[in-house]
Amino acid sequence: MAHKNRIGNLFSLTSFGESHGPAVGGVIDGMPAGVEIDMKKLQREMARRRPGQGGVSSSRNEADEVEILSGIMDGVTLGTPIGFIIRNHDQRPEDYEHLKDVYRPSHADYTYQAKYGIRDHRGGGRASARETTARVVAGALAKQVLEKMGITIVAKSITDVAEVPQGDTIGGVVECIIKGVQPGIGEPVFCKLSAQLAEAMMSIPAAKGFEIGLGFDFVNHLGSEVLDKWMMKDGKISTETNYSGGIQGGISNGNDICFNVTFKPVATLMQTVEGIDSQGNTVTIEPRGRHDQCVVPRAVAVVEAMAAIMVLDNILINRASRL
Amino acid sequence: MAHKNRIGNLFSLTSFGESHGPAVGGVIDGMPAGVEIDMKKLQREMARRRPGQGGVSSSRNEADEVEILSGIMDGVTLGTPIGFIIRNHDQRPEDYEHLKDVYRPSHADYTYQAKYGIRDHRGGGRASARETTARVVAGALAKQVLEKMGITIVAKSITDVAEVPQGDTIGGVVECIIKGVQPGIGEPVFCKLSAQLAEAMMSIPAAKGFEIGLGFDFVNHLGSEVLDKWMMKDGKISTETNYSGGIQGGISNGNDICFNVTFKPVATLMQTVEGIDSQGNTVTIEPRGRHDQCVVPRAVAVVEAMAAIMVLDNILINRASRL
Amino acid sequence: MAHKNRIGNLFSLTSFGESHGPAVGGVIDGMPAGVEIDMKKLQREMARRRPGQGGVSSSRNEADEVEILSGIMDGVTLGTPIGFIIRNHDQRPEDYEHLKDVYRPSHADYTYQAKYGIRDHRGGGRASARETTARVVAGALAKQVLEKMGITIVAKSITDVAEVPQGDTIGGVVECIIKGVQPGIGEPVFCKLSAQLAEAMMSIPAAKGFEIGLGFDFVNHLGSEVLDKWMMKDGKISTETNYSGGIQGGISNGNDICFNVTFKPVATLMQTVEGIDSQGNTVTIEPRGRHDQCVVPRAVAVVEAMAAIMVLDNILINRASRL
Amino acid sequence: MAHKNRIGNLFSLTSFGESHGPAVGGVIDGMPAGVEIDMKKLQREMARRRPGQGGVSSSRNEADEVEILSGIMDGVTLGTPIGFIIRNHDQRPEDYEHLKDVYRPSHADYTYQAKYGIRDHRGGGRASARETTARVVAGALAKQVLEKMGITIVAKSITDVAEVPQGDTIGGVVECIIKGVQPGIGEPVFCKLSAQLAEAMMSIPAAKGFEIGLGFDFVNHLGSEVLDKWMMKDGKISTETNYSGGIQGGISNGNDICFNVTFKPVATLMQTVEGIDSQGNTVTIEPRGRHDQCVVPRAVAVVEAMAAIMVLDNILINRASRL
Repeated sequence: MAHKNRIGNLFSLTSFGESHGPAVGGVIDGMPAGVEIDMKKLQREMARRRPGQGGVSSSRNEADEVEILSGIMDGVTLGTPIGFIIRNHDQRPEDYEHLKDVYRPSHADYTYQAKYGIRDHRGGGRASARETTARVVAGALAKQVLEKMGITIVAKSITDVAEVPQGDTIGGVVECIIKGVQPGIGEPVFCKLSAQLAEAMMSIPAAKGFEIGLGFDFVNHLGSEVLDKWMMKDGKISTETNYSGGIQGGISNGNDICFNVTFKPVATLMQTVEGIDSQGNTVTIEPRGRHDQCVVPRAVAVVEAMAAIMVLDNILINRASRL
Repeated sequence: MAHKNRIGNLFSLTSFGESHGPAVGGVIDGMPAGVEIDMKKLQREMARRRPGQGGVSSSRNEADEVEILSGIMDGVTLGTPIGFIIRNHDQRPEDYEHLKDVYRPSHADYTYQAKYGIRDHRGGGRASARETTARVVAGALAKQVLEKMGITIVAKSITDVAEVPQGDTIGGVVECIIKGVQPGIGEPVFCKLSAQLAEAMMSIPAAKGFEIGLGFDFVNHLGSEVLDKWMMKDGKISTETNYSGGIQGGISNGNDICFNVTFKPVATLMQTVEGIDSQGNTVTIEPRGRHDQCVVPRAVAVVEAMAAIMVLDNILINRASRL
Repeated sequence: MAHKNRIGNLFSLTSFGESHGPAVGGVIDGMPAGVEIDMKKLQREMARRRPGQGGVSSSRNEADEVEILSGIMDGVTLGTPIGFIIRNHDQRPEDYEHLKDVYRPSHADYTYQAKYGIRDHRGGGRASARETTARVVAGALAKQVLEKMGITIVAKSITDVAEVPQGDTIGGVVECIIKGVQPGIGEPVFCKLSAQLAEAMMSIPAAKGFEIGLGFDFVNHLGSEVLDKWMMKDGKISTETNYSGGIQGGISNGNDICFNVTFKPVATLMQTVEGIDSQGNTVTIEPRGRHDQCVVPRAVAVVEAMAAIMVLDNILINRASRL
Repeated sequence: MAHKNRIGNLFSLTSFGESHGPAVGGVIDGMPAGVEIDMKKLQREMARRRPGQGGVSSSRNEADEVEILSGIMDGVTLGTPIGFIIRNHDQRPEDYEHLKDVYRPSHADYTYQAKYGIRDHRGGGRASARETTARVVAGALAKQVLEKMGITIVAKSITDVAEVPQGDTIGGVVECIIKGVQPGIGEPVFCKLSAQLAEAMMSIPAAKGFEIGLGFDFVNHLGSEVLDKWMMKDGKISTETNYSGGIQGGISNGNDICFNVTFKPVATLMQTVEGIDSQGNTVTIEPRGRHDQCVVPRAVAVVEAMAAIMVLDNILINRASRL
């Protein structure tokens, strides 16, 4: 369940922040009380999202120090909302002055302007990947709760990264596997766990596709070839194959939950491109600033974070399923 | 925004109903007042969803007569909630007695049981495709509002339907194109229009994948190859290409919104399959009842319906974007 | 949490229906699975809400037969949404033809028209007390769950009903006491249990005031006079007095939850009154139809129903409070 | 609509913060874009909420400097979420060490402990009146939008403040009048504007009662005495009297919206009181720290803030009422 700048129901993140404003941050509401939080682990998750994750990412120096303002006392969660901020230190607004009245191709400049009649043009404003820091904070905390329940979430890039021509960019696919979710999690009909994961993943900047289990490859098979046959395993009902990706009818069946997310190539190129201004004049945009050549290495941490938020939220909601 | 059996925020559908209970139905909340409703058009949409849409669908005879109980007076919407029901006439519970304690492969039998500790085993209960009738009612009404705004939604199957072996099933891909949405619709960050469409589509029974614009094919291109270059068209800013699928940063850019949804083959085969019972014993399930060989022809109407709900909801929400 | 025609979060009611349309009804979402439902008890609750509860109520003959359409199988809840309808049998639209373009004093005629630009003028349409039938259905089901948890809800009128002059009406106060709620229920800050009860009660037609514990009388006391001193009772922490009304900081303390709701006199008099038409002309309205002289006897059942919905919802939400 | 630590739907506040943690703050989501914000006005509203509003309030020195972190650029709202924090400077945790295992009478100590199994005992933690700073920030911004629409909100204490005995406390009643709301605002049934105002007011710390229009006094009148007779005023339909308090059927009628909120005396006395510890032992609590003798002067600003939030939210929601 997403609602404007909030995602999740019982466990939720409401986020805020422009790329070049004073800070980004958010409020995590519904964190269960009594959870010991390892702040070093959280900070390590933040590092995974930072630019510079390999040669293909940008070199912007974002320390991403998370300041927790509430909801945790002596390292233990209070059940009250966790407010947090991450200061934006490395601002260079002058890098963006030339874009004030320009809409870059395949960016959100024009659509924000069309929606709000105003926009923060500096570094993409709210449409910047910097927004995802808040997601990683909430995800890192959710992960720590899930770990105590025996649930692990691991994402990785499954795209062969060919040589990227100088000044160009590429996209990629992130695969995510969630292990240890008990059967029965997820709400059927509109809130299928698969539907919620799709919404969460497609809300990540540059995400353009989502598939679960066999996904788009299902169309290449007959029904008889892709039935997940039941078997007993360690005294529990399980399946021999996992074409369904761990979810049937929107509800977890106890198997690994497996899905892929595809990301388009970053739209900011380190080469001259053509934009348009608000009067309709073509504008030449010279490359400036610092930008990722490929978003996928950084997206891995964000995919895991979003998955953790959705799974924890659904586990909490499921506590109300039976008398 | 989906919440249990509800989808949408300002314009929403809350649905109910088991396949073999007395009726399915729902409440459409937030329909703007003063809209003339063409009930014949609505009934035609219902017919599109019915089984028997070509040789590959089942022959269950569902009249699907929609009874409107509130919210419309003399053919005009009142702004109050529209309650409606569709009676389930053609019930044959005896067809399902043998499945009372059996979990069919790749169905939701086991997961519902794991979640609730109880389930309606007749015809899939709430997990039946019959649940989608309520979606089509809400979608048909949303469409009539959208039409008055100059917005059209057309979906179609884009899978080559090969010969289906007798007793087997196939899946397929539905393409949907939404024309006429003004720039500025959709909420950025978690409620990206693309994310909401993904959630809505992945909530349709048997949906396993979603992609927008170039989607999964983005990974085969360099950034420079898939920039949507701006141009002026009829005095408006538009793009030469539409790799983005009409949405940038989660917000519509005025171009056609184009996405694909993939559906797995129907899991109910007209051949003998193996299930498992609650004690873990393998059970042979003989084919019985009436079932679709391919869900895609019927899914087309449901895809359009869900798209209409999401687009109308976002248009209404957008009215609050500016002072 | 209320949202348009829905109230409640994990346990919620979405209602629909105009007074003189085909039916009123609703969808109860989030009923926990596995609850045995006593339909006779439910029907008895409906009878308590019916007109004719003593001499001061109207004589409209509403059978109020509830038809359950989903979510309950063989008398046990499935965890899926419970759709239900109550047909409007005793419609006399001709009684209201003269009110088509008239706004009655202290009714919702004008405000509905101002909001929607259209309204169902027959019997108050959606603004009729008939709308509360759906509340009583949901409340009756919630009560049955609460009873299994040892929670009882009893409301009663505490107003001395003086002789009502022929053709006039009176209001009154309903007192409600909820026994057996464990300490710790309710969300602090915006979702205080007291705040949610206030919203729920003030949403009942004709409700004009709400107070909890000592309520408005608190202003007549010094702080030292109204402290609820702690004591041990049956090995549990309790209080000697209950000025707080069972809730402190928005969260239940284990004591009886006690609140009052005040209702204004019914605005439909059985005497000539002056209305106004849409052109601003004064219109004389002669008494017609069937109307309550006092809403309080019927409101008792509605107060209990709304209390049951809110308490059950909060108990379910509270399951997520701790790891 | 409140949901955990959030209130409002299209315009909402999500708040966080313990009294003696690093900061309190929140996220204001849904502020319409393009609104010029006067930060000095906002800071003046903060000052009205501060302790020391007359002799009967405490002397805690809270500067309450609001730091806006996002959503406003060059003094104009962007439409994106407004994150903000107010640092807690004047912390004296040592004042509260003796209360670590003690439940004070008529405080939320015990109920928080019962709910979460843990609590921040310093200065009431999240249950402190300090939490209301975030409300005043959101309310101050909402007010600035409402002013541009010609809407004003004025609250005041209407209790005769008698001499308060040394070391004791008193409560009081705050009256609030909202002028300039057009007819048609508010959702009928569960989201009546009156119900939403009730929820918002009853969510303020120490609020124990709410009434609208004639409120509890309605029971002293016959229906014929309290009809709001229609009349024409300046070419518009209006009423001669305003017993209804500006709302009929949950929707504004264009008249002043008038309601009262009652607050209990502050439970922290500057005299010795008896508490209980978690083992059930009686504990003598000596007065310490800094506390309000009467909450009402400070509550005035909070009442206005909450009213502003609810009215703005409903005005935005109402934009979707008609085609």
